[in-house]
Amino acid sequence: MSKLPKVGTTIFTVMSTLAAEHKAINLSQGFPDFDCDPLLKKLVNEAMEQGHNQYAPMPGIMPLREVIAQKISNLYGQTVNPDTEITVTPGGTYAIFTAIATCISPGDEVIIFEPAYDSYIPNVLVNGGTPVLIPLSYPDYHIDWQLVRSRITPRTKMIMLNTPHNPTGSILRETDIEELRKLVTEHNLLVLSDEVYEHLVYEGAQHLSILRYPDLLQKSFVTFSFGKVFHNTGWKMGYCVAPAHLMKEYRKVHQYLCFSVNTPMQYGLSNYLRTPEHYLSLPAFYQEKRDYFLQLMADTKFTPLASSGSYFQLMRYDRISAEGDKEFAERITKEFGVATIPVSAFYEDGKDDHVVRFCFAKKKETLEKAVDRLRKI
Amino acid sequence: MSKLPKVGTTIFTVMSTLAAEHKAINLSQGFPDFDCDPLLKKLVNEAMEQGHNQYAPMPGIMPLREVIAQKISNLYGQTVNPDTEITVTPGGTYAIFTAIATCISPGDEVIIFEPAYDSYIPNVLVNGGTPVLIPLSYPDYHIDWQLVRSRITPRTKMIMLNTPHNPTGSILRETDIEELRKLVTEHNLLVLSDEVYEHLVYEGAQHLSILRYPDLLQKSFVTFSFGKVFHNTGWKMGYCVAPAHLMKEYRKVHQYLCFSVNTPMQYGLSNYLRTPEHYLSLPAFYQEKRDYFLQLMADTKFTPLASSGSYFQLMRYDRISAEGDKEFAERITKEFGVATIPVSAFYEDGKDDHVVRFCFAKKKETLEKAVDRLRKI
Ligand SMILES: CSCCC(=O)C(=O)O
Ligand SMILES: CSCCC(=O)C(=O)O
Repeated sequence: MSKLPKVGTTIFTVMSTLAAEHKAINLSQGFPDFDCDPLLKKLVNEAMEQGHNQYAPMPGIMPLREVIAQKISNLYGQTVNPDTEITVTPGGTYAIFTAIATCISPGDEVIIFEPAYDSYIPNVLVNGGTPVLIPLSYPDYHIDWQLVRSRITPRTKMIMLNTPHNPTGSILRETDIEELRKLVTEHNLLVLSDEVYEHLVYEGAQHLSILRYPDLLQKSFVTFSFGKVFHNTGWKMGYCVAPAHLMKEYRKVHQYLCFSVNTPMQYGLSNYLRTPEHYLSLPAFYQEKRDYFLQLMADTKFTPLASSGSYFQLMRYDRISAEGDKEFAERITKEFGVATIPVSAFYEDGKDDHVVRFCFAKKKETLEKAVDRLRKI
Repeated sequence: MSKLPKVGTTIFTVMSTLAAEHKAINLSQGFPDFDCDPLLKKLVNEAMEQGHNQYAPMPGIMPLREVIAQKISNLYGQTVNPDTEITVTPGGTYAIFTAIATCISPGDEVIIFEPAYDSYIPNVLVNGGTPVLIPLSYPDYHIDWQLVRSRITPRTKMIMLNTPHNPTGSILRETDIEELRKLVTEHNLLVLSDEVYEHLVYEGAQHLSILRYPDLLQKSFVTFSFGKVFHNTGWKMGYCVAPAHLMKEYRKVHQYLCFSVNTPMQYGLSNYLRTPEHYLSLPAFYQEKRDYFLQLMADTKFTPLASSGSYFQLMRYDRISAEGDKEFAERITKEFGVATIPVSAFYEDGKDDHVVRFCFAKKKETLEKAVDRLRKI
């Protein structure tokens, strides 16, 4: 009677637990090992002190939705209506689930690219939909639009995107947007674009948010996370942007799924976001970490794969071992004390390119200590 | 293409918005107009300061699950395993949705008693299930088990209970438990028991939590809310208790719906719950408010209906008007400045017994000011 017979424990919990058991340095699950800005905590505390402890309005407090709209205007030159087109959610994962629950019924097909963040497939299955799994190219992890077209059927309802992409760090390019536009128009598809790493793009690359394209946005849900970018993954705060006609349906589900989201955290975030520097500084902040990590790793037998965003870095380990990546990840956690994520965990069929994922959202000392250990392999 | 074509805006938002527009005293939506305990806020702030700002474990932090298990043992004499039988959720509404998403597939029938909390029916529909609506008796709002039996079919999968009951304040009695036990055994049903008002029972009545009955608990999800009882509805914190075999499936859905719940709030609550007085004092605290409200209302033309729990009080208004309850509730909000909830909103077919619901989780002054206005009707 299980709706998800094949689902076990998420790989993030598996690897973080293994890391804890073996006192390994945890570069597996994606979260920072440094704290968020003290100002942000102070602002939440002030909100609690001021008595903002009862239900927020169902779509979120207006000051937060307004400052999100302002940010979208600053970054993507797009006007979205905070009253009807933005809904605050308890995290990015919830924002994604709710979009799927809103649109997907039994029989509907949803295109998902692999490697895929591990909630996508179960989210579609719980709602009775059929995931249509399409591999990204290897090793550059781009979308093969020819292949996508060959998998479209009359039941195709939605296409899920993730840019910057977890786990690979690839990002959508202008050519992808053009292909997407054609496909979506020809086949009347909905788009769900997971953009939780929006601020984490490197070497001056541009994040091509779906929010930039009014015609695409008309058919899209675009989801974001505060935790992923403001170093407070444990607060579980995010939001969804969609045109009013889709948001109306989304809110019908949201209002009975969770009703509303943590009030004092909403006030804290809305005051924090008033200072654009708080998000404008993020690309440089994470670029420095990434560069430092790559520089340290140059001295090991791992080979980095090209990447443009997210706080993850894929590494081949073929100069070290011919093991499968699950075996390898488990072994180096136990023997060398550094935990990573095997990328095959993001493929339904376990496709194994002998690649592991490192999270570099860590203190300099942590990265140094980890690479000291990895050098010994 | 809407999955919820008939769903509009929840009555709670409708009436709270109307109250705000007309500067009415808001006795409609269920939330306190006083703040939560300063100690609780202090404990959350301490958790943030201590750096508890990254992902909590998927089922919740262990100290919180342990203290919940302790509370269950204290109150209901039941041993539940915090490792496998408790999951922390972003609120009671989410806890309920997730139980339904875990068990209900297209074609499954779910028994729901009316008047019903307004998320139940949409929750079943979003998951493709069929709500089977059964009215509680009027005016005592008990379950007619004969009627329930007549509505059982081979597709009946789950029965939803709510005790203390919102909006009526009725509670399950020992005879109900016996009937439930027989029914559940004979027809192999699952139980979803919404007990968010567990601490709010009056005149020494006992809350017959499903947690008291090991045989029933084996087939049940039991859901709770911190916000409803600790006066911080805006924090959106709750939990679900279920036997390990059901909780395993529940967590498969939860881990991909939201993954985990606000970390600093979990630490704050776990430290707060270490002092049992914090929940043992709640029945007396709310009994005083209820008694005071009833005493004040004795001086109006409203007639209270019998009730044993929750922070709601139903009132007939037949000595005032023959209007339908939606009309009446709207009119007294506008003309007399007191907002209530029309109970017909909790019936799918709008069944109208000319009853409105008052929330008495308010400061003494608020109740006094409201009743001063109601006296004029
Ligand atoms: C929700 S736990 C996983 C965190 C994450 O996004 C990742 O490690 O990819
Ligand atoms: C989630 S808003 C409704 C609050 C409530 O439980 C009620 O008023 O009945």
